[in-house]
Amino acid sequence: MMDTVMGVDVGGTKILIGLVRLDGTITHERRYPSQRGSQEIAIAAVKRAVAAYWAELVESGAIPRPDAIGLGLVGQVDHRRAEWVFSMATPILTPYPLGREISEQFQIPVIADNDVHCATLAEIRFGVGRRFRDFVYLNVGTGIAAGLVSDGRLIRGHQNNAGEVGHIVANIDVPCECGRVGCIEAYASGGGMIRHARALMEQYPDSVLAQLDREGRMVSSTIIQAAREGDALAIRVAELMMKAQLSMVQDIINFMDPQAIVCGGGVFRDPWLLQGIIDGLTGWLPPNNLALLDNITVSKLDPQKIGLIGAALCAYQETSA
Amino acid sequence: MMDTVMGVDVGGTKILIGLVRLDGTITHERRYPSQRGSQEIAIAAVKRAVAAYWAELVESGAIPRPDAIGLGLVGQVDHRRAEWVFSMATPILTPYPLGREISEQFQIPVIADNDVHCATLAEIRFGVGRRFRDFVYLNVGTGIAAGLVSDGRLIRGHQNNAGEVGHIVANIDVPCECGRVGCIEAYASGGGMIRHARALMEQYPDSVLAQLDREGRMVSSTIIQAAREGDALAIRVAELMMKAQLSMVQDIINFMDPQAIVCGGGVFRDPWLLQGIIDGLTGWLPPNNLALLDNITVSKLDPQKIGLIGAALCAYQETSA
Repeated sequence: MMDTVMGVDVGGTKILIGLVRLDGTITHERRYPSQRGSQEIAIAAVKRAVAAYWAELVESGAIPRPDAIGLGLVGQVDHRRAEWVFSMATPILTPYPLGREISEQFQIPVIADNDVHCATLAEIRFGVGRRFRDFVYLNVGTGIAAGLVSDGRLIRGHQNNAGEVGHIVANIDVPCECGRVGCIEAYASGGGMIRHARALMEQYPDSVLAQLDREGRMVSSTIIQAAREGDALAIRVAELMMKAQLSMVQDIINFMDPQAIVCGGGVFRDPWLLQGIIDGLTGWLPPNNLALLDNITVSKLDPQKIGLIGAALCAYQETSA
Repeated sequence: MMDTVMGVDVGGTKILIGLVRLDGTITHERRYPSQRGSQEIAIAAVKRAVAAYWAELVESGAIPRPDAIGLGLVGQVDHRRAEWVFSMATPILTPYPLGREISEQFQIPVIADNDVHCATLAEIRFGVGRRFRDFVYLNVGTGIAAGLVSDGRLIRGHQNNAGEVGHIVANIDVPCECGRVGCIEAYASGGGMIRHARALMEQYPDSVLAQLDREGRMVSSTIIQAAREGDALAIRVAELMMKAQLSMVQDIINFMDPQAIVCGGGVFRDPWLLQGIIDGLTGWLPPNNLALLDNITVSKLDPQKIGLIGAALCAYQETSA
């Protein structure tokens, strides 16, 4: 029986490490910088962070030796082999046995999973999963992905890639970099909104978004705010985003028949989006499914901790399975 | 431990009843007419068929008394309560406790499920599920629906409606009767192809489809055949159908990350469709998922028996759970 897992949450700008107990409490949390220059640099940053944590806290005897390490990684992850398979953003272009290397170095079991799967494991255990057996965790941040939960279990798929809902298509006739036309992520993610605004910037010389972009402050929340204040470009970007989001949620409902949808990620910080989705579903949902409207919510788990807790939970589950 | 289940497969034109053993063998099969005039007529036909079978074979002592009855029904089914909730085609517009009524009449446990879920249970146990843990059973007949299988288990969703992939959207800008725009079922199902051809008929006075339709022979297979022979209307209908099918399969892959997709239903009888989907996926699938191309196949189970076996399996599983 495991007692304590060392959770490692590798994000775009930081690596969070902490001791996570099975009840979800975190102690001895530390923060290290993450890196994205190349695959080698990104992996070296993770290994350096784990080694620094280990030296400061484990080797020194300041904390008990953890029973396992759980890694939460962006992109495609082979959770059985703890391999970092692919990530566009980081970038990881060649599968890398990160878990095995860390495991050999510190003589400890290492489990890895995709960050949205990790967050979903945290929702199952400590969040919306305490009320619902069938739900979807929808994460809209820089990209879009979901954790699909059926009968209390995370659906992983064959290669642990289930839930890539950012590349299902809406009814929008513009090519996506994945090779399809009309993918939702191209407009409806935080990153997609920024790219879409930039692509249209020339047509809207008076838009406040140009100034925001120059100042490095053009993100989903400031675009939505500008739309609320009447900026024509921001309205166009936000309305297309809303249309694509609504289409994606309708597809999710048709696919999964969830009892609840719990939303996470930066784009949901502004309540406008969730309200718009709920408004759009009203009138479309059949009468016997209207209860779903009350169960579309923003995650109540701390967005700063959900990844870390989930990474540790993944290790708890995989090593005790 | 159950030994024998009486399976009841309620289709659009016939009701098949037989004794199904846990090894999938069927004996004492009988066929009765199904009816679709109204909810009352449709339900009465099912009850009449069950009563006729019971009188002929069970009451007479010709066969041993079955341990349970499994009903396979079109549309939305509450499998826990064996209630027929909704079906556009049949029509069932008010939820009806069909299972409870049959159960009380014959003093036997009755389980019900949706027909595509039933077929998927049969695939899990006797078909593609013997090789794959994560797969999708895609049924394209008059309508479109799928059975989603994760880790060997059918994903039911909250109200047993998971897998309604016919109403996810492709990138096609035409309204569907469900209230969305661009739904796949409107073009890519057998029924959708017929409606689409009829809507365009006036624009193609020379099309052979007009003659086929008058003779009651315009179905998916004859439309595909006419397209192959160069009929312009048939080509237009078939090409849009292929485009929508490919889009749907790409969405299924992004959602579920299946190791295999097994196809059933009348539209797949012509190999043209499956080949087109495989061709379309080639070049889109990432290199580490090309093995999926070999695992997209037509179901090897007897299309006449799969529903009956599945209806019985559902009863085996639910009553022993």
